[in-house]
Amino acid sequence: MRSDVPITSLQRLPVYLNYLKTLGGGVTYVSSGAIARALGMGEVLVRKDLAYTSAQGRTRVGYLLSELIAALEEFLGCNDKKNAAIVGAGGLGSALLAYGGFVNYGIELVAAFDNDAKKIGTKIAGKPVLDAAEIESGITSHAVTLAVICVPAKHAQDVADRLVACGVKSILNFAPVLLRVPEHCVVRNIDVAANLAVLCSMA
Amino acid sequence: MRSDVPITSLQRLPVYLNYLKTLGGGVTYVSSGAIARALGMGEVLVRKDLAYTSAQGRTRVGYLLSELIAALEEFLGCNDKKNAAIVGAGGLGSALLAYGGFVNYGIELVAAFDNDAKKIGTKIAGKPVLDAAEIESGITSHAVTLAVICVPAKHAQDVADRLVACGVKSILNFAPVLLRVPEHCVVRNIDVAANLAVLCSMA
Repeated sequence: MRSDVPITSLQRLPVYLNYLKTLGGGVTYVSSGAIARALGMGEVLVRKDLAYTSAQGRTRVGYLLSELIAALEEFLGCNDKKNAAIVGAGGLGSALLAYGGFVNYGIELVAAFDNDAKKIGTKIAGKPVLDAAEIESGITSHAVTLAVICVPAKHAQDVADRLVACGVKSILNFAPVLLRVPEHCVVRNIDVAANLAVLCSMA
Repeated sequence: MRSDVPITSLQRLPVYLNYLKTLGGGVTYVSSGAIARALGMGEVLVRKDLAYTSAQGRTRVGYLLSELIAALEEFLGCNDKKNAAIVGAGGLGSALLAYGGFVNYGIELVAAFDNDAKKIGTKIAGKPVLDAAEIESGITSHAVTLAVICVPAKHAQDVADRLVACGVKSILNFAPVLLRVPEHCVVRNIDVAANLAVLCSMA
C-alpha cells in the first residue's frame, strides 16, 4: 500500500539500491550528493526519494551505507518472500525463468504455465512447466501473487483476466498489448520493440 | 529529433498504434473518445498525444483510421529501416533475436555479439552471432544505430561505452545497472526484477 509514493520515485528506488550494493567494503557513509553525482541525478530528488524509506541521513556524513541498503530493501519488500509465476514458457519466458535477479527482491519464481504439450511436465531452469489449462489450481496451490505474462498478444488479456480472478495482484506484461485490470491490481506493460522505437524517435 | 515531445507522450504512441491495428476492417473512422474509452485513458490526453503526429481529426467523425495509423507509423519511424544489434546472446538475448515484433517499427536485428566461443559463428533465429571482441567492426559494417544490451551487469557499462564510441545512439539496457551515456545518446534501462518488485510495492 504505497499509493502515497509517486510511481517515478518508486521506480528509482531499485536504481539506488543497485548502485549502493556496488560500493566496496571500505565505504561506511554515503551522502545524497555522492549518490546524485554517481547516477547523474539531482541531489534534491535523491534526498526526496530516500525520505520515503526509513533511512535517516546525518548532517555532514550522510547515510550509514548498511542502514540505507536495509531501509531500501525493507521498503521494496526484498525480505518478504513472494511467489511469482510466468505464463508463456517460450523464448522470453524461459530466459526469465533462468534469470537469477528476482531473488534479490524476495521474489521466487515457482512455476511456469504453457499450453505446449511438449513442454508441460518438464522443467526449465529447475522450475516446473504446468499446463496453462490449470492456471487457476496452480496459482492457488503455489500461493502465487505476482505474474509475468510472456504469451502472444492475442492471448494476453484472457490470461490476465484468469490470473486476476484467482488472486494475482501484480502483473508484468511483455505481450505487445495494453492490458486492462481491475483497480485493486497493478499492471506494467513492457513492449520491447516499442521501447526501442521510442528511443529512436528521441535520438 | 523529437525533443519537443514529452517522453510520456512518446511512450503512449505505440500503445495507440497497437490498439488501432486491432480494429477490424469494418472501421473507417475512430474518435479520440473511442480510443480513450478502449484504453482507459482521458480523452483530452489522447487528443493531445495524437496532435504531435500529422493526423487531422474531423469534427464529429474523428480520425480516418488508415490516416491515423499512417501518421503514427510515420512519427515512430516505422517506415525508416534501422539496423539493430543485440549484445549478449544468452537466454534473454536469444529470445529477443527470435522475437518478430521489431520489424513493425522498421527495426531489423542484423546481428548478435557474444564472447562465448561455442556461440560465435553460429546463427540464432537466423541472425549471425559475432565475436564480442569485434563489436566495433561489426557495428560499423552492419550500419547499426540501435543496440540492446543483455550482458551481465558488470560488463554493461563497458559494452555501452564501446557501442557509443562507434556511433550507436539508442540503447535499450536489460542489465540491472544504470548506464551512463553522453547527452547525444539515449538509453532506457529495463530491470525486469526491479519492475516486478516495484509492482509489489504498489499492490
